Amino acid sequence: MKYGMTGKILRIDLTDLTYAVEEPDEYIYRTYYGGSALACYYLLNECPKGTDPMGPDNLLIFASSPLVGSGIPGSNRYSVAAISPLSGIYGEAEAGGWWSPELKRAGYDAVLIKGKAEKPVYLWIHDGQVEIRNAGALWGKGTGDAQDIIKNDLGVKRVSVAAIGPAGENQVRFACVVNGLKHTNGRGGLGAVMGSKNLKAIAVRGKQSPDFHDKETLKRVIEWYANNFMDHPIERVLHDGGTIGWDVTELDEAGILPTYNFRSGSFEKADDICGETFHKQYFIEAGSCQGCVIRCKRVARSDGPYKVDPAYGGPEYETAAAFGSLCGVSDLEVVCKAHELCNKYTLDSISTGATIAFAMECFENGLLTAKDTDGLELKFGNQKAMVECIHKVANREGIGDLLAEGSRRASETIGGGAKKLAMHVKGQELAMHEPRGKGSLGLAYALSSTGANHTEGPHDYLFQEGALGVSDLPELGILEPVPAIELTPEKVRYFALMQLTWNVFNTLGLCIFTAGPGKLLKMNQVAQAVEAATGWNVTLWEIMKLAERTVTLKRAVSVLHGITRKDDCLPDRFFQPLEGGLLKGMALEQEVFEKSLDLYYDMRGWDRNTGIPTAGKLVELGLGWVNKLLGQQ
Amino acid sequence: MKYGMTGKILRIDLTDLTYAVEEPDEYIYRTYYGGSALACYYLLNECPKGTDPMGPDNLLIFASSPLVGSGIPGSNRYSVAAISPLSGIYGEAEAGGWWSPELKRAGYDAVLIKGKAEKPVYLWIHDGQVEIRNAGALWGKGTGDAQDIIKNDLGVKRVSVAAIGPAGENQVRFACVVNGLKHTNGRGGLGAVMGSKNLKAIAVRGKQSPDFHDKETLKRVIEWYANNFMDHPIERVLHDGGTIGWDVTELDEAGILPTYNFRSGSFEKADDICGETFHKQYFIEAGSCQGCVIRCKRVARSDGPYKVDPAYGGPEYETAAAFGSLCGVSDLEVVCKAHELCNKYTLDSISTGATIAFAMECFENGLLTAKDTDGLELKFGNQKAMVECIHKVANREGIGDLLAEGSRRASETIGGGAKKLAMHVKGQELAMHEPRGKGSLGLAYALSSTGANHTEGPHDYLFQEGALGVSDLPELGILEPVPAIELTPEKVRYFALMQLTWNVFNTLGLCIFTAGPGKLLKMNQVAQAVEAATGWNVTLWEIMKLAERTVTLKRAVSVLHGITRKDDCLPDRFFQPLEGGLLKGMALEQEVFEKSLDLYYDMRGWDRNTGIPTAGKLVELGLGWVNKLLGQQ
Repeated sequence: MKYGMTGKILRIDLTDLTYAVEEPDEYIYRTYYGGSALACYYLLNECPKGTDPMGPDNLLIFASSPLVGSGIPGSNRYSVAAISPLSGIYGEAEAGGWWSPELKRAGYDAVLIKGKAEKPVYLWIHDGQVEIRNAGALWGKGTGDAQDIIKNDLGVKRVSVAAIGPAGENQVRFACVVNGLKHTNGRGGLGAVMGSKNLKAIAVRGKQSPDFHDKETLKRVIEWYANNFMDHPIERVLHDGGTIGWDVTELDEAGILPTYNFRSGSFEKADDICGETFHKQYFIEAGSCQGCVIRCKRVARSDGPYKVDPAYGGPEYETAAAFGSLCGVSDLEVVCKAHELCNKYTLDSISTGATIAFAMECFENGLLTAKDTDGLELKFGNQKAMVECIHKVANREGIGDLLAEGSRRASETIGGGAKKLAMHVKGQELAMHEPRGKGSLGLAYALSSTGANHTEGPHDYLFQEGALGVSDLPELGILEPVPAIELTPEKVRYFALMQLTWNVFNTLGLCIFTAGPGKLLKMNQVAQAVEAATGWNVTLWEIMKLAERTVTLKRAVSVLHGITRKDDCLPDRFFQPLEGGLLKGMALEQEVFEKSLDLYYDMRGWDRNTGIPTAGKLVELGLGWVNKLLGQQ
Repeated sequence: MKYGMTGKILRIDLTDLTYAVEEPDEYIYRTYYGGSALACYYLLNECPKGTDPMGPDNLLIFASSPLVGSGIPGSNRYSVAAISPLSGIYGEAEAGGWWSPELKRAGYDAVLIKGKAEKPVYLWIHDGQVEIRNAGALWGKGTGDAQDIIKNDLGVKRVSVAAIGPAGENQVRFACVVNGLKHTNGRGGLGAVMGSKNLKAIAVRGKQSPDFHDKETLKRVIEWYANNFMDHPIERVLHDGGTIGWDVTELDEAGILPTYNFRSGSFEKADDICGETFHKQYFIEAGSCQGCVIRCKRVARSDGPYKVDPAYGGPEYETAAAFGSLCGVSDLEVVCKAHELCNKYTLDSISTGATIAFAMECFENGLLTAKDTDGLELKFGNQKAMVECIHKVANREGIGDLLAEGSRRASETIGGGAKKLAMHVKGQELAMHEPRGKGSLGLAYALSSTGANHTEGPHDYLFQEGALGVSDLPELGILEPVPAIELTPEKVRYFALMQLTWNVFNTLGLCIFTAGPGKLLKMNQVAQAVEAATGWNVTLWEIMKLAERTVTLKRAVSVLHGITRKDDCLPDRFFQPLEGGLLKGMALEQEVFEKSLDLYYDMRGWDRNTGIPTAGKLVELGLGWVNKLLGQQ
């Protein structure tokens, strides 16, 4: 590798406590780049069907990307991937912060971890050196304490730490990985995989930035971005209010704020948990990721009864809705506390909130009683019980041990009508977006290869007639605005194309808030930035084919681990009318939904009957070798 | 339309002798651009299944494109399209010259012609004006005389004339259209469609070039091209020797020069018909198309027994092989004469040579006798009989009337084993490339929606290990050289991608000799040129999707008119060993070939069983409306 990456991949075997450095061919880098595509490449090759997600053979991957560290706003991310303990299929989550640029400065593009340490360890990667160190003193600690101990242990102040807290150690199936206390690889239970390997943390530090090919062009783009983002309506909103300032009120008014475990689209106390309230009462400052001018992160603090520690940042919209409207909780201090606890324990706030909301509905329906909940009155709106539940889940105590299995497994254990109340796809809980009011979101949830996933495409309403994003559509070949809500064939097309743009960012290590349709940095500029970083003659064609390859690779991993078309579905609830809000009465139609799936498979070159990528499509994407794994030719 | 095109499409009704001007929405232009994609758009909408190719309801289209007239070398072409009298499915052929830029200067992007004039007419389109004029005096004339008469009739010297000769008038099923006496819309019998409408010619003249958006960028590309093409090995070869100077000897030595009706891959007298011989004996000067520095056209002249008139240009490689090695003829003067006659009569030289070669093999096998051939000893190598045959075909005299139906229909009439000797796919004769030695060419022939077509992708050998084109592959996502001959899955991938680049040029009005993989102007530069011409934010992604749309539109027209997967085949001969030359003994394998088709359909999003584009793929390409026509949803 000449430009953009280090060319080195670090292999760790925790069973033997050894490591090795690999230098893949440039061909591998240009085919898979980094992040999720690179992760899938290794998972397909090394984790056959039947690999136990919590076993030593699961491969845990931390993967950076060519743009990372280039200074392009948002280009600071990395993917953590493995076979997910939550879904049993492809598990992946991204985070920003400083960890990913630091890994590259330390001399590696990715870290691949196998095996299981006999006793807790952490990794210390610095300037090409690798140490596997005793983590005995860290075990049982929250992320904050763990990070402090590591810094002391190493005697290095500027070190970036990705760690798990007790939830990861206890293999809560939706435990996450947190770096810098506030940047989370949230979904899919990858923290539990770390825990299963007795790996507490990865600390990185490096002083050698990889060389970028055309620094002048990168500098020009960076400066242009800095000069213009405040004039871009969406970047400005993100800068001024973060995601919590963007979504809560707007979604509530539109009738698509997930409320009471997705029964309603409106929360009567939405104003209490909205961005304005947050900024008035708990906001102390904006936070950022490496090299990003947007500064969309919020930092919360409270000295009230729940005492919220600002070291852990503050809630995103997803967290606010998951612990707020979804659980019927309107006390924003409690929401901020829930956020802090999630980052400390390393719990995915979406799955945590959603699993508790599921439990609340079970409780209200008599499927769970106080006997099951250690006496907690687990009703919607009971904020105290909700916070108590978070502690119990992280520590797998009482009812927490059941809920730590995630809503799918918990619903199977509870039995009765509980299955119908678990709002998940393929085992992963839905994020805080209502499919009945966002036509393409339902497809995203149903079709994502990691289970219900909201980062598979932007909100439809940004691209309807007269909306901001419409002018960005022609670049992708869409010449007309999309319908606001309905799931038309054109909407499926829009989704399939948008899904490409959103997916490729997880391979490029780029943030969906700074770039892509509707954002300031356009897709073609992304291609130009990648070309400037790498020196390859990259065009938007290559980026979009990389995106298609990424989506198909993810699918291939999950197909290998058991999914077929029948798993591409939504909970029954979404085919029933919304119970409240502006869209009250709105329901998805099963026939339209199935027809939309048909069209989607056609668009992707996946078989309509099985949902499996066709042999020719895999060859066309340069993935002919995957056919053998899937038993086809 | 602000830039690149006139925004006006001319409709002619020859039955009523009326015309009208349409101004389609910009949406239509950006979706279909021009050339073949635009032609398909109109054919799909206006020519239902069952349209008689020779009837008044067939729609005859002459379509220019946004780049045409911009000065980018090679950007001077146009498509003629209709339902083909030869194949009964989509018929399309391109030509360069001056006609297309002149049409745009005259104020129109395309001309759509329906109906049938009671008496012969020609069109005179000049500076926005349209006249439908009496062609009584022209009927029966060759293209040279016809053009002279038109110029006199109009009293205008600088006028560009696309015309038919007697072959078109007599509705020879492979009659072509010729402009400027030397630029041919060769394949598919579109001259016969003109003849069936009693339309002798379209004369155009205009003084108003359409405005181009970014003239500075266009100028820079044009200058760069002019400064560099002589250093580019392939552009240099085309400049120095034309196609006749490139191919004959090289292909003969490689064992892939179609000889004796595709029985052999080597012609013992190849040197007699090669470029060197041509340049020594008959070449008088190089010719050009509008604005092109390559000047690949050859002009031939002979004062020998066959007297060759230089007004009609000179033979391309295709013509040299079709009337040379394919018919076993080694007298290059005769080949030049055959070329002249084809351009005068308006016969497609490929189908003419191939149909005569077919008749020769029938004759040698006793399936035709001197009684059938009006006494001609129609054996391989009988050059006199070959020339006589050309006259007879054009005038539909004797054996010529049978052969004027094309080799498929003629073979059905002759019966016996004749069908096995007709080298066609879907009714259109194979061009002069041997599928047994060019792995992807066989696919191109089998899969082209116009029947056997050699302009569906470049020669494989340009992209094998160490070859010139390899460095252009990464731009398209192919990171490794392709195998030289074999039909591997990777070769199918290569073909599917290359087919896009070659097809889109027929939509953009650009020449495959100046641009594309292996040529000087790279695909991304093409995208930039289109952006500069139109002002749209065009990237290579848009161009490649346009290409995919084009290939799929063509397929849709042909599916509507009856083809399915079973028609995607090659003559049996190619699954038999080559009888001579370096690759003697080489044969395609049916199983490998069928497997390759499977992969191809997957890659295109066409159904493997039927070969029909899937509903979702059509929607994804912005062609959802086509599903209804094809009876699917």
